[in-house]
Amino acid sequence: MIKNKSVHTLLDELASKASTPGGGSAAAIMGAMGAALLSMVANLTVGKKNYEGVEEDMKKLLQRTEELRSQLTGMVKADVEVFDKVMAAYGMPRDSEEQKTSRTAAIQTALKEATDVPLECARLCAEVIRLSEPVAEMGNKNVISDAGVAVLAGYAALRSAALNVYINIGGIKDEEFVQDRRGQLEEIMDGMDKLNEEVYELVKSKL
Amino acid sequence: MIKNKSVHTLLDELASKASTPGGGSAAAIMGAMGAALLSMVANLTVGKKNYEGVEEDMKKLLQRTEELRSQLTGMVKADVEVFDKVMAAYGMPRDSEEQKTSRTAAIQTALKEATDVPLECARLCAEVIRLSEPVAEMGNKNVISDAGVAVLAGYAALRSAALNVYINIGGIKDEEFVQDRRGQLEEIMDGMDKLNEEVYELVKSKL
Repeated sequence: MIKNKSVHTLLDELASKASTPGGGSAAAIMGAMGAALLSMVANLTVGKKNYEGVEEDMKKLLQRTEELRSQLTGMVKADVEVFDKVMAAYGMPRDSEEQKTSRTAAIQTALKEATDVPLECARLCAEVIRLSEPVAEMGNKNVISDAGVAVLAGYAALRSAALNVYINIGGIKDEEFVQDRRGQLEEIMDGMDKLNEEVYELVKSKL
Repeated sequence: MIKNKSVHTLLDELASKASTPGGGSAAAIMGAMGAALLSMVANLTVGKKNYEGVEEDMKKLLQRTEELRSQLTGMVKADVEVFDKVMAAYGMPRDSEEQKTSRTAAIQTALKEATDVPLECARLCAEVIRLSEPVAEMGNKNVISDAGVAVLAGYAALRSAALNVYINIGGIKDEEFVQDRRGQLEEIMDGMDKLNEEVYELVKSKL
């Protein structure tokens, strides 16, 4: 599993000719880094002098950012698995009509899964972005730049996941599914651009 | 060294109460992931049918993206080292006037180094962003979304590095140094916002 590999090996594998891990895994890792940095700010706020008033809020935020980190870390593996499934489907034999039908059905099923994984990743990244605002507002000022890096990482991860939705949805023939998932993605991304800039500016103003 | 740690351990350490690794390391890792993904697209373009015309260009790009990946990976270690140096300087004794003077001098020296490391990181990330344009233009269309993720990662890393310049430069008393480094950072960031959006849109248009 990627999460057990060293950072060095991960980078080697990203750079290599192998198709996985690729941008989908990178998106999930960036999202997980964003969540981890929010946890760091929360961890360095809880129990600190002058931050007693926000302690309970920060504890709740920490619980959620840690859940998100775990979920996003899990998305790395899910991304590789669905990508491999798509590749395996494309690699199925297509000599007879029957084989062609099976192959097409397998590709369509795999592409749907390969759309839903980055869509879920995007949803989690949007939450990283949303949580970065209260963390940047209430968190320990000494490490507030880390909340800024968190929102930037979450936003890059969100848009990266979106690219992975677009690339897979392009091959799906079920129009109802396509419209539904495009709608979901639009809803997830709505306002995120503005929120990312707001949190970045908020952090910058505190440095 | 962080690069030898597992992704899982890295995320645990980012999230922990320990101040390092923090946002500066996350920035360098995101930049290195961006460079790695550009290498992946180049690796999957060189030697491929229909891409003979861009083979020489892609080989040159690959050489540079691999250099950048190595340099940005090195920035992770450099970031932790300078941060620890700043912390050590702040921790120096300040009982006598002499000690106070030594401590102030050590803090100022450490803060300058802690400005120059993310500044260099920002410079490398800007190159990741610039190289993502020809890679997205000429690279293998089947993996073009990875060039999109690369530019997004590079851009998030650039702005994250900038936050780390701002936070350290704030404590530096040498006005000439401050003006010089602020000028350098502005120059590095000039046009990057627009280029990031252009490459993202270029990639999206090819999906």
